[in-house]
Amino acid sequence: MRPQIVLFGDSITEQSFRSGGWGASLTDTYSRKADVVVRGYGGYNTRWALFLLHHIFPLDSSKPPVATTVFFGANDAALLGRSSERQHVPIEEYKDNLRKIACHLKECNPTMLIALITPPPVDEERRKNSARTNEATGTYAKGCIEVAKELGLFSVDLWSKMQETEGWQKKYLSDGLHLTPEGNRVVYKEVISLFSEAWLSAEEMPLDCPHSSEINPKNPEKAFQQKCL
Amino acid sequence: MRPQIVLFGDSITEQSFRSGGWGASLTDTYSRKADVVVRGYGGYNTRWALFLLHHIFPLDSSKPPVATTVFFGANDAALLGRSSERQHVPIEEYKDNLRKIACHLKECNPTMLIALITPPPVDEERRKNSARTNEATGTYAKGCIEVAKELGLFSVDLWSKMQETEGWQKKYLSDGLHLTPEGNRVVYKEVISLFSEAWLSAEEMPLDCPHSSEINPKNPEKAFQQKCL
Repeated sequence: MRPQIVLFGDSITEQSFRSGGWGASLTDTYSRKADVVVRGYGGYNTRWALFLLHHIFPLDSSKPPVATTVFFGANDAALLGRSSERQHVPIEEYKDNLRKIACHLKECNPTMLIALITPPPVDEERRKNSARTNEATGTYAKGCIEVAKELGLFSVDLWSKMQETEGWQKKYLSDGLHLTPEGNRVVYKEVISLFSEAWLSAEEMPLDCPHSSEINPKNPEKAFQQKCL
Repeated sequence: MRPQIVLFGDSITEQSFRSGGWGASLTDTYSRKADVVVRGYGGYNTRWALFLLHHIFPLDSSKPPVATTVFFGANDAALLGRSSERQHVPIEEYKDNLRKIACHLKECNPTMLIALITPPPVDEERRKNSARTNEATGTYAKGCIEVAKELGLFSVDLWSKMQETEGWQKKYLSDGLHLTPEGNRVVYKEVISLFSEAWLSAEEMPLDCPHSSEINPKNPEKAFQQKCL
């Protein structure tokens, strides 16, 4: 039974299998060890994500995920009175929705590794419709980290992390909001380092079946008898 | 119940989630419609792949894959008496192993879309150990296509397809054997076109849940009641 890692989030998760994407890189890293499953919903905020919980994470699953990344907030942080206000979710509701998501995941699998990821920063200069500000998104990022601390969950403060690098606006963001391959690389590195420091280090996980170098061509049966998880 | 597409093969499948990889591109295309599962085993030939069949494709699965790519031959075609001879499988056994794999998959799910993919061509100039020749690999590619025709399976003649393009050696192969991002693109395009022409067109498959534009922010329940597969 191979462990499953679910990536749950908005468009930044949905697009994570494009060239250089962080989801694809995770899949590559956990190849032959765990399956990475993408559940990214472009345009979704946490309020709408709640409707998906029982669908994506049924409570009666015999094989729930061992780890899940929860990566929302970029849409919740859309400002009221601007072009994307339909996506707006007030900060306190956003935090409460994250709590509900985490609570459901824990109910699904009490030992699940849950990693909350904050929205990335916003490059306002390249968001012509001014639906979001970096400051407002920062408030949601802070709220996300607070919920993680409060519930004892893992977290990645992507909003802060990215802004540590000079020129983050163009280096990490393709359109002021979504990620470049380099931005994807940051998410990948943060998630993989978090997973490794927790208990989900790909290096320490066994291969599902013998490495080809372990197979004796004159007696291949032996290697497969000994090791086929 | 989301459909599952399995990519079964050797290192060219195992590496298909690296940057620009064909597996990652398929995952992106089928996002919110089908799950792509990678089962790539570097160094494996079809003889060793047989040991994995019941493990990867259990006959009693309640939810077998709807489609599987079977992508072996690059290692089977390694020459006897050269540095990789331990991977060598005689051509007739290779063909028979492909028949056994296809037979098992059909037993697993009689309606499964099975696509046999031939090994890519070999750029001998860049394979210093001379373990493979392009001509020998071509024999295996031909054998693969013959088995597909014999059993009425879908197939991609990658060996021939790639050599139609001038400069295929460096354009499509990174080390004379494995694929560049452009080589990955060829595999992606061939597989997606085959899947679409069969009955697995991503465009025609329904989204798992409402598109965000279909959600009325004042009454989100409605969209989810109507559509959540």
